[in-house]
Amino acid sequence: MKSPGRQAFRLAEIVERCGGELLGDPDLVINQVATLENAGAGQISFFSNPRYRQQVERTRAAAVIVSAEFADATDSSRIVCKDPYAYFQRVSLLLNPPAAVVPGIHPSAVIHPSAEVAASAAIGAFVSIGADAQVGEGSQIDAGCALADKVRVGRDCRLFASVTVYHDCVIGDRAILHSGVIIGADGFGLAWDAGRWNKIPQIGRVLIGDDVEVGANTTIDRGALDDTVIEEGVKLDNQIQIGHNCRIGAHTAIAGCVGIAGSTHIGRYCRIGGKAMIGGHLEIADKVEISGGTAVAKSILKPGTYTSLFPVSLHEDWLRNASHIRHLDALAGRLRELEARLAALEGKKND
Amino acid sequence: MKSPGRQAFRLAEIVERCGGELLGDPDLVINQVATLENAGAGQISFFSNPRYRQQVERTRAAAVIVSAEFADATDSSRIVCKDPYAYFQRVSLLLNPPAAVVPGIHPSAVIHPSAEVAASAAIGAFVSIGADAQVGEGSQIDAGCALADKVRVGRDCRLFASVTVYHDCVIGDRAILHSGVIIGADGFGLAWDAGRWNKIPQIGRVLIGDDVEVGANTTIDRGALDDTVIEEGVKLDNQIQIGHNCRIGAHTAIAGCVGIAGSTHIGRYCRIGGKAMIGGHLEIADKVEISGGTAVAKSILKPGTYTSLFPVSLHEDWLRNASHIRHLDALAGRLRELEARLAALEGKKND
Amino acid sequence: MKSPGRQAFRLAEIVERCGGELLGDPDLVINQVATLENAGAGQISFFSNPRYRQQVERTRAAAVIVSAEFADATDSSRIVCKDPYAYFQRVSLLLNPPAAVVPGIHPSAVIHPSAEVAASAAIGAFVSIGADAQVGEGSQIDAGCALADKVRVGRDCRLFASVTVYHDCVIGDRAILHSGVIIGADGFGLAWDAGRWNKIPQIGRVLIGDDVEVGANTTIDRGALDDTVIEEGVKLDNQIQIGHNCRIGAHTAIAGCVGIAGSTHIGRYCRIGGKAMIGGHLEIADKVEISGGTAVAKSILKPGTYTSLFPVSLHEDWLRNASHIRHLDALAGRLRELEARLAALEGKKND
Repeated sequence: MKSPGRQAFRLAEIVERCGGELLGDPDLVINQVATLENAGAGQISFFSNPRYRQQVERTRAAAVIVSAEFADATDSSRIVCKDPYAYFQRVSLLLNPPAAVVPGIHPSAVIHPSAEVAASAAIGAFVSIGADAQVGEGSQIDAGCALADKVRVGRDCRLFASVTVYHDCVIGDRAILHSGVIIGADGFGLAWDAGRWNKIPQIGRVLIGDDVEVGANTTIDRGALDDTVIEEGVKLDNQIQIGHNCRIGAHTAIAGCVGIAGSTHIGRYCRIGGKAMIGGHLEIADKVEISGGTAVAKSILKPGTYTSLFPVSLHEDWLRNASHIRHLDALAGRLRELEARLAALEGKKND
Repeated sequence: MKSPGRQAFRLAEIVERCGGELLGDPDLVINQVATLENAGAGQISFFSNPRYRQQVERTRAAAVIVSAEFADATDSSRIVCKDPYAYFQRVSLLLNPPAAVVPGIHPSAVIHPSAEVAASAAIGAFVSIGADAQVGEGSQIDAGCALADKVRVGRDCRLFASVTVYHDCVIGDRAILHSGVIIGADGFGLAWDAGRWNKIPQIGRVLIGDDVEVGANTTIDRGALDDTVIEEGVKLDNQIQIGHNCRIGAHTAIAGCVGIAGSTHIGRYCRIGGKAMIGGHLEIADKVEISGGTAVAKSILKPGTYTSLFPVSLHEDWLRNASHIRHLDALAGRLRELEARLAALEGKKND
Repeated sequence: MKSPGRQAFRLAEIVERCGGELLGDPDLVINQVATLENAGAGQISFFSNPRYRQQVERTRAAAVIVSAEFADATDSSRIVCKDPYAYFQRVSLLLNPPAAVVPGIHPSAVIHPSAEVAASAAIGAFVSIGADAQVGEGSQIDAGCALADKVRVGRDCRLFASVTVYHDCVIGDRAILHSGVIIGADGFGLAWDAGRWNKIPQIGRVLIGDDVEVGANTTIDRGALDDTVIEEGVKLDNQIQIGHNCRIGAHTAIAGCVGIAGSTHIGRYCRIGGKAMIGGHLEIADKVEISGGTAVAKSILKPGTYTSLFPVSLHEDWLRNASHIRHLDALAGRLRELEARLAALEGKKND
């Protein structure tokens, strides 16, 4: 059981709003999106991966979104379009619009008198907002969020419960920050001096552009001297760590559990797989893809897909194979020696 | 110094309640469990790993829980049983029962009038509970937790301070959620369209079964269309990330810092080591063990223990050996060539 | 734009307080630190890495901190000292002192009558402090922190917003805990018994020494029986997980996203790179360095730098090379066989 869609549209209306070509009943009413496997009456699904061919043949969806190539994959009503997944997104948003923001400040919230909260913003229970902070029109700040002094949150943002933003950090318009996100904690800046670590004041900020989404429990550290910058349209999944003075280029998407060490600059339109690790002070070019689990210790200056994964196997096979890793250099040396000896032997043979 | 045990039992009473055979003084009073190394008067320890043989010989524990095989490993009073570690758990629970829940709602809590909180539940300071939410009998919700609209929490649950549960998610009976846990944040669902990422509404829920424990700062995303499901008896350690639409089979245990990408199904009775990574859209069979740090990029359809770890070595040795990894294919090719040349030579020799 | 420095000092005053030799104008007023690249009037920078030679030549910094070796690298006013980075830290702290703590308890805070909060401490909004807890002189506890019963926080600590400390845990003097930190959640202690996991009561504590800093969303579990111990001067970055009964030696620094499984003891003065993983029940000696991303599955008993990383490459190259990993043992066997055959052939040849 899912939350009911809040809207219903006839197929003809959907095509009118989202485009595409309708094959089937224009008056069929659609009230929710669903997977091919679980869709039923009133629900629309999509089909783009040939791997799910069987599912599209058996689906009980009222309608299916398909590409021209697969226009005949089902007899159900269908919408033919160029990119079924992108189209599906538009239909889902139509059927599941974000709930309207109900303006107001919960009586339990603690807001510094010098803070400016827009009249159309919604501030939840136990929210604290510091001196000279700003919250823009239409933004919703849920229960237990803490915005420190001079924080700026743009328009139409959503901060889910328990988001923390340290002083002076700036969040653009239409940003979504999920619960447990920490923006602007101190970077890991230490100087070793006389047998102990001394903390270097972290005086930069975090600047987050427009249309950025940040997943649950992700942390983005403030800059040591200059700012840490997340450009517009960046999408970050859960439990990502971004070190001080990083710059993440516009429209880059980063999957969960990725760690990026300090002062690394990542280009625009990159895609970084889950649990990847990127070392500090590196440059990653635009349009680089990094596979999940990959550890990057050097700059990557050319677009392409990059990988570093030890292949998985049964433990006993791994034991047998992995033991040779520690002797690869010796093994390569023995190979070279064999080549030389064999060449010598072949030489004699041909004499 | 530890918290004092809240109870004391004679050895005879312990054996009466937990089983096993007592060798030694039945009237010895035991008030706490402890390690072999640090146990003293009134404390009971256990011995199951032969590696700690010396410790059992030197222990000052009042009593020791042992298996039949090691019944003579100590002269102290001892309880002989089949599985000393499981037995030790029962004794520890006897001596350290969970504190009784003190029913009541802290005056600072903000509870929507339509929410149903059982009379025997305990709701802490600064807790917020949304519309139509439910909290079952005997459940304790600590300070600063935020339960959104329509959340259901079962009976006898414990949510430690600062747990966040998004709307519509369901938590079974006797669940333990540690601080910083985020249940039901949006999955990482994006469609690329005309040069930018568009967010796909995440309309599924998270369903958590009975007797599940979730460690601190672990995140479990809500489903994109269908639900994310954590079956009964699953045990999750800290800082685990579980993507949307995953299913984790009953009684599977997952150690800290594991990341599981979206739509992956993990079987029952699996054991997954710390910092393992499991890619998206995979199937992991029942009773699979995955070693710590292992990255799984393909489905695993047979029980067994699976590993993928680059062996650690001194950095200079690593440098020397690892450089060959990038040329393994060439190295294998040279080996094949040598084999052919040698065979040719041997052929001539035998001519 | 950064937060303005709160102080200004003449170069002569800086040298008077921090040492070093001044070459240039003693009356130049310095009000902030900055990078060589972005420094301007009134700002001081430092130069220690020859890689940034060009930047020091072009900098518009009012003054630069340099080592004797590079005393002539710029014509600007400069301070010559032994360790420019350590010196820079002292200057930065001079110019960016922590804000004074404003004593007082926010009226929304919920503090148990038996708790002791020092008169000079500052307690923020929505903070909850349990029975018999203590907060020392000059400590600042920000919004939404939850300290359970019997927690002890020392003098001059800073707990940023939304820190959670479980019952009985102890935090030394001058500790800094960033937002989202969870101290003392239950360790992952389970006993398998009759087809299900039984939870083992975690009765140890977490003890944190003086001058420890803990990064955002880091979790440190309480001990199962004995305590988990973080010794003085340890510096932990964000999203680190430390399992129950670990001991981290004094002045060890651990970068972000590191996972340390239970009962592992790490020595003093270690440096552990980001996303490293250290298995359970291991010993790591003093002064060990572990490279970022390295997985340690065995004890390390000698100082040195240790690494285990699969080298990154273009995905298609990786595919080609990685496939041989699963056959390394066979490949090594073929090499041995070739050596034997070649030796036999050489023997005959020489006959």
